[in-house]
Amino acid sequence: MTKKEVILTGDRPTGPLHLGHFVGSLRSRVELQSVHDQYVMIADLQALTDHAKESQKVRDSVLQVALDYLAIGIDPAKTTIFIQSLIPALSELTMYYLNLVTWNRLKHNPTVKQEIVQKGFGESVPAGFMIYPVSQAADITAFKATLVPVGEDQKPMVEQTNEVVRAFNRIYNTDILVEAKALIPKIARLPGTDGQTKMGKSLNNAIFLSDTPDRVSKKVGKMYTDPGHLRVEDPGKVEGNPVFSYLDAFGTDLDKIQELKAHYQKGGLGDGTVKKYLIEVLLEFLEPIHKRRAMFEGDNGAIMEILRKGTEKANETASQTLADVKRAIGIDYLQSAIV
Amino acid sequence: MTKKEVILTGDRPTGPLHLGHFVGSLRSRVELQSVHDQYVMIADLQALTDHAKESQKVRDSVLQVALDYLAIGIDPAKTTIFIQSLIPALSELTMYYLNLVTWNRLKHNPTVKQEIVQKGFGESVPAGFMIYPVSQAADITAFKATLVPVGEDQKPMVEQTNEVVRAFNRIYNTDILVEAKALIPKIARLPGTDGQTKMGKSLNNAIFLSDTPDRVSKKVGKMYTDPGHLRVEDPGKVEGNPVFSYLDAFGTDLDKIQELKAHYQKGGLGDGTVKKYLIEVLLEFLEPIHKRRAMFEGDNGAIMEILRKGTEKANETASQTLADVKRAIGIDYLQSAIV
Repeated sequence: MTKKEVILTGDRPTGPLHLGHFVGSLRSRVELQSVHDQYVMIADLQALTDHAKESQKVRDSVLQVALDYLAIGIDPAKTTIFIQSLIPALSELTMYYLNLVTWNRLKHNPTVKQEIVQKGFGESVPAGFMIYPVSQAADITAFKATLVPVGEDQKPMVEQTNEVVRAFNRIYNTDILVEAKALIPKIARLPGTDGQTKMGKSLNNAIFLSDTPDRVSKKVGKMYTDPGHLRVEDPGKVEGNPVFSYLDAFGTDLDKIQELKAHYQKGGLGDGTVKKYLIEVLLEFLEPIHKRRAMFEGDNGAIMEILRKGTEKANETASQTLADVKRAIGIDYLQSAIV
Repeated sequence: MTKKEVILTGDRPTGPLHLGHFVGSLRSRVELQSVHDQYVMIADLQALTDHAKESQKVRDSVLQVALDYLAIGIDPAKTTIFIQSLIPALSELTMYYLNLVTWNRLKHNPTVKQEIVQKGFGESVPAGFMIYPVSQAADITAFKATLVPVGEDQKPMVEQTNEVVRAFNRIYNTDILVEAKALIPKIARLPGTDGQTKMGKSLNNAIFLSDTPDRVSKKVGKMYTDPGHLRVEDPGKVEGNPVFSYLDAFGTDLDKIQELKAHYQKGGLGDGTVKKYLIEVLLEFLEPIHKRRAMFEGDNGAIMEILRKGTEKANETASQTLADVKRAIGIDYLQSAIV
């Protein structure tokens, strides 16, 4: 029997979740929750590191993201869903860990460096954003997570966490913190409907899990394909053509997809026909998701109750880790034999 | 009637407190506690920012510093004495404030820059140390302190706090955070017994509040004076002569001190005679401190009880501020009408 892993994953609540999230991480959570001990964090604290001035958006997205989770089949009986800002131990652990990481090390975190460029922060990058890898180390270690599902580009975050774990255990001569492994998904990234390599909330190229069938059809109808495929009889490209990437990601009839690809490459298959099939595939995929969504939509009380329970459980676990950490550092005054 | 101020002050627990601390800050706390609402923080969290590997020293110093406070007459009935690491809201507030301060701004904090050089950190400065001004902003604002007694060199810290206050109130359209004024002591700095401009625990030039009369006498006996004052009949310098600085700081018979200074400058007054008088002055000053110390020494239970009560009160105040802050940001999910 394989040892049960503890999984920590989550999302920044900055908008509704989309198909890219599903392929990159949400799908695997539904599978993992039956096998392992899974914590899913709605990372509002982390969202504020680059959305301090848009806190209303963060606030509004918390329920939205929770609803998306329930809709795709994350089961609160199997997965602990919680709100990051309601777990004080995560901030406290961050403070202790920040003393074990040099300023210089943070400056050279490859993921953060790349994101600073992407977000156009320049010199005005908030300090909270620069230290978020340490905050993530707090999130991961608070639950003693052993497995962290992340995209390839987020691997340096897990490495930073493990550096903190090793430094802490060495300096305080303990073994209470555990290292985590990155779990990289097979299909890491779904292109946007505009053919951009990444689907993004802010890129205006996303199909959301909450999009109505009508919206899905319209978005697929306008999708980027092969710009060289001008007439139906022209041979078309399948690589870099998001319509086929989506079929690969969501289609179940592999023979049919294979056939369509061959036909498209040879010539004689119009974009409209392939898109029509993709709409069918997506609506079939989304149907159970929309059904589960409808069960919770409008009943915010039920969603909040799920979040309340998950947060309570997460709080217990994280508080226990914090107590262990403080004992290891030696500052457990009131609980200890100092008196 | 003047408005009652709220005062936040404290010390890093990294060793026993000395005469320099008394002159620079402790003395004023005893006066201020009768007039204002005073919080005194044992800043163990902050001590760890540059003592992460010496956490045992931090731990051991917490009780030591508390005992020093009680010995000099800080009265727990008038002053709230508390332990920083036992107030989770301080870490949480730090996380929110870090998003309002740029990385660049932290890099250029004059106090931190100077301390990095003094401590010889170079490239390996811990991230926790770099962000401690924001952590201080959390400490100050958590208690809505309006007055912060600091040395001249610490003024940029209060400025950083006020920048956070203004940014927070502007961005979240609120007035819950209040700006603080720096209170600079008249005699800011006592020289070390070796004539160095600063008395420091780590400089081996300190007379501790807990030093026995015998130790005080020995330390004064070896004190640096005017190196040009070789023979008794030589004229001596009073400026930069720590023996006279100490007399100015602790003596009560101003006429006698004036007389000694004149005699010393004219020539004919030996260092031994002045030192003998300084010993008298210091022992008279220390006597009530040692008496109060003896009342608590050995009764760690009583000290811990004082700290427990103070921490409880501080926790209530800071938690209330945190709740206000979260409401202003808009992430008070469970308490609010989001459902």
